[in-house]
Amino acid sequence: MDAQGQTRALFGNPQTGPFFVMDAEPGDVLAIHIKRLRLNRDYADSLDSIVGRAQTPALAAKATALDKPVRWTLDRQRGRARPEAATGKLKDFWVPVRPMLGGLAVAPGFGNAPISTGDTGRFGGNMDFNEIREGATVYLPVSQPGALLYLGDAHALQGDGETSQYALETSMDVEFSVDVIKSRAQSAPRVESATQVMVLGQAGSLDDALRAATAGMAQWLEQDYGLSLSETAQVLGSSVSFVVANLAGRSVGVAAKLDKALLRRVERAPGSTPGARP
Amino acid sequence: MDAQGQTRALFGNPQTGPFFVMDAEPGDVLAIHIKRLRLNRDYADSLDSIVGRAQTPALAAKATALDKPVRWTLDRQRGRARPEAATGKLKDFWVPVRPMLGGLAVAPGFGNAPISTGDTGRFGGNMDFNEIREGATVYLPVSQPGALLYLGDAHALQGDGETSQYALETSMDVEFSVDVIKSRAQSAPRVESATQVMVLGQAGSLDDALRAATAGMAQWLEQDYGLSLSETAQVLGSSVSFVVANLAGRSVGVAAKLDKALLRRVERAPGSTPGARP
Amino acid sequence: MDAQGQTRALFGNPQTGPFFVMDAEPGDVLAIHIKRLRLNRDYADSLDSIVGRAQTPALAAKATALDKPVRWTLDRQRGRARPEAATGKLKDFWVPVRPMLGGLAVAPGFGNAPISTGDTGRFGGNMDFNEIREGATVYLPVSQPGALLYLGDAHALQGDGETSQYALETSMDVEFSVDVIKSRAQSAPRVESATQVMVLGQAGSLDDALRAATAGMAQWLEQDYGLSLSETAQVLGSSVSFVVANLAGRSVGVAAKLDKALLRRVERAPGSTPGARP
Amino acid sequence: MDAQGQTRALFGNPQTGPFFVMDAEPGDVLAIHIKRLRLNRDYADSLDSIVGRAQTPALAAKATALDKPVRWTLDRQRGRARPEAATGKLKDFWVPVRPMLGGLAVAPGFGNAPISTGDTGRFGGNMDFNEIREGATVYLPVSQPGALLYLGDAHALQGDGETSQYALETSMDVEFSVDVIKSRAQSAPRVESATQVMVLGQAGSLDDALRAATAGMAQWLEQDYGLSLSETAQVLGSSVSFVVANLAGRSVGVAAKLDKALLRRVERAPGSTPGARP
Repeated sequence: MDAQGQTRALFGNPQTGPFFVMDAEPGDVLAIHIKRLRLNRDYADSLDSIVGRAQTPALAAKATALDKPVRWTLDRQRGRARPEAATGKLKDFWVPVRPMLGGLAVAPGFGNAPISTGDTGRFGGNMDFNEIREGATVYLPVSQPGALLYLGDAHALQGDGETSQYALETSMDVEFSVDVIKSRAQSAPRVESATQVMVLGQAGSLDDALRAATAGMAQWLEQDYGLSLSETAQVLGSSVSFVVANLAGRSVGVAAKLDKALLRRVERAPGSTPGARP
Repeated sequence: MDAQGQTRALFGNPQTGPFFVMDAEPGDVLAIHIKRLRLNRDYADSLDSIVGRAQTPALAAKATALDKPVRWTLDRQRGRARPEAATGKLKDFWVPVRPMLGGLAVAPGFGNAPISTGDTGRFGGNMDFNEIREGATVYLPVSQPGALLYLGDAHALQGDGETSQYALETSMDVEFSVDVIKSRAQSAPRVESATQVMVLGQAGSLDDALRAATAGMAQWLEQDYGLSLSETAQVLGSSVSFVVANLAGRSVGVAAKLDKALLRRVERAPGSTPGARP
Repeated sequence: MDAQGQTRALFGNPQTGPFFVMDAEPGDVLAIHIKRLRLNRDYADSLDSIVGRAQTPALAAKATALDKPVRWTLDRQRGRARPEAATGKLKDFWVPVRPMLGGLAVAPGFGNAPISTGDTGRFGGNMDFNEIREGATVYLPVSQPGALLYLGDAHALQGDGETSQYALETSMDVEFSVDVIKSRAQSAPRVESATQVMVLGQAGSLDDALRAATAGMAQWLEQDYGLSLSETAQVLGSSVSFVVANLAGRSVGVAAKLDKALLRRVERAPGSTPGARP
Repeated sequence: MDAQGQTRALFGNPQTGPFFVMDAEPGDVLAIHIKRLRLNRDYADSLDSIVGRAQTPALAAKATALDKPVRWTLDRQRGRARPEAATGKLKDFWVPVRPMLGGLAVAPGFGNAPISTGDTGRFGGNMDFNEIREGATVYLPVSQPGALLYLGDAHALQGDGETSQYALETSMDVEFSVDVIKSRAQSAPRVESATQVMVLGQAGSLDDALRAATAGMAQWLEQDYGLSLSETAQVLGSSVSFVVANLAGRSVGVAAKLDKALLRRVERAPGSTPGARP
């Protein structure tokens, strides 16, 4: 539902697009700058769920009455969200809003089947990563002429992993611009904020997603900073952060993060592309 | 090796203890307040490794020349660490020190075999969690009379997961005090900092560790805040953070974190114990 | 390529269909009886790969020269396959052929995106399970009017998991018939041979796939044999087999198997459907 | 409890040993030939559990009344076991006995902590693998002078994975002999039956256990058959079986199996040791 409460798309994870990006060709990377991301409605819808991937058997035995809808009030003035009808312990509970896009993708490669807006991959997708916010730049590898960018699934906020299956699902005004970085290898989605560089590994288990995130970060450090694998090992061992991005989809996500302040102390590789400017 | 460079313990993960804590009995929880944690040496030893759990097959094929020792210089004045002999890209690289204890444990329960200082469990152990720092309180369930507390494995700093297999291993001055919280169930190690409450899940895979962390946080929210599982689901879904604590041991660790500022907005359960004071 | 070596489909996992099955409606189960499955060509194509999911880091470091094509000769008279050009240790190596269908599926449910012939789910798909052979019956839950059955990806044989990424890919004559079992819940693909009942769990990790297989078998035992969960626990604990079906796709597969001889000793539930006749 | 019902050991997984094996030194492999394994009691004790590792959240929600003791009658004349007090659907249920040793181990290496009889590792341990039966030979890498062999935890039978947490726990007469194979590398436990060679991978997840089993089998094929990794890939891809050995312990187990008939068609490596004689 849009700002006026009108239904604009059926099913979950509504998207806008695809946008054909001039000059974007297979083998390039698309840099999407999220310039503005603003709530345009006074409520969001969620659930009181705990996703199966976060449940122990003992917790599952107690969780049988969950999965009910919960409406949240969005106080845009003060930047706060609260469960509208809470009467008990959560009567005075509120959390700061932190608007983000759950979905952001380009078309997958030749030979791939069409994908659901709920799915994810190397091309991005329903990443549900709470760092895809105003001010962030997302880098996605292009597989089709024109990239065929689409984005949506606006979340007023979510904790790591979207453990309630639905985040605070709402409507948003979005402004973005794109750059094309020509001929650049990239194994996994990358995100850059004012302070951090991040690589998102996505796979069928957290263990495999973390492997993909680490390999993707090693690739970035080699490409843009000219680090040897030994140097990368030292940077990661001393400084990497790993957070769980998503638990609610078919694939899960783990993000590897490094502070840009830290990387400024790494002598910059001469031929590194201007794509990432940490 | 201690402050003077004298070898004080063989093998990895050196510990001090066990300390018999008066009044601590099976079924209690031991609260360990880490009051002071200060580097007392000017160097630390590490490796340029990437642990197997962070390697994709493609990364593994390139990682065959790693696993060499790296000495780091610790500049205690400025609170910085740098790889001592770095000549290439890492010539000007440094990271802020962030002293932490890799190991902190009580004795495991009756019927358990003795455990290595490199192992972990519900009782704590070689958790290698970089939030166990000066100012933190760690809560561990007591299984033996006197608790039999031990601690050690001082790290000048480490990234999430201790991906280099050895963190910046060094020597430290440690001051701590303990409280006994009587008769309190606790399924997993808990850590409390000035700003956050954290539960550490430890298991054979990140997927199972995250489940244990989530169940442990649900237990805490029920015990100290009287939250129903539905309310817990809303708090987690909107606000939880999941970080990877440890990848270098037999078990891995995932921590669930919540901001204490947030929990102050939850009406406090009347009968909640004084153990946690978020 | 077909029996005459003519290319009939591009890309991997060629399929025939979809077939509209009269009377098949959402909520039913389609029973596909594989009546005849015969090789119709004298060769098969494979690789000398070891899939990433079967590689330790140490193995990955040694596996860099693999992934080369290997043609196998199929001796249909004697029912044997051998690597055509083997000169070394495998000069006299042969394995008995064991023709199977890698792919067998119905259309996924309303709201799902179209799926690749390489993908899998509750609806079946590219299961690559070496028990889907002549004489087997496969049960798949119907989600669309007419079921929209398709099948293909003929393998002369494969080990568990299709660890070489391509099995012995070849062409086959296939005869099958279908039955519709009305209004029957089924959480996962089921396979029945002359001697066993099997449920295939498919998920992003073997750990989760095994959980799905176990739950699917418990569902079957309750439906057709009227077993309580306590009785199911005793049957599984004493008698279940778990094999790894597939390691080569996005999801992996684990099959739970029970001998039909064993189940004959379980008093049959009065109202059980005729779908499975173990 | 022994043949006469007298308690001989407290807690789970009772063992006999350790036996000091003359000539066994670190770096050797101990071959344990299980010559006789006979039930000597008329009952076994088990549970009606489904281990957490086999439960989906939905199954867990229904499994809250399980975990009750179940006594089984062992009919040694006819080689059958049946739940003693079954009245419902399992009234006529029986399964053939298949006596096996749940535990078989040598002492772990220097620097390791003592281990529980419930734990497992490269040294063997509480493997709970139902192929460790009369006639089998188990190969374990020696880490201590004299090997310090111990064995026990007699199971009348169990399904794959010991999903009921306790198998049919009973007492047994055991006869075995040992051989020492000098100076032989071995990364994981190996088992040889009359018809198969098997390698048992043990780790914190099935995914990692399968990796260890595959790497261990590749090591065996190289050592005893001189297979290149490309040849190993072809043998595995066409012929390997993967079964789940154990789900009930801290580590889980996956076994890779190959038929010895098949390996007879591989030209034998000239210098291969006599340890394995497939």
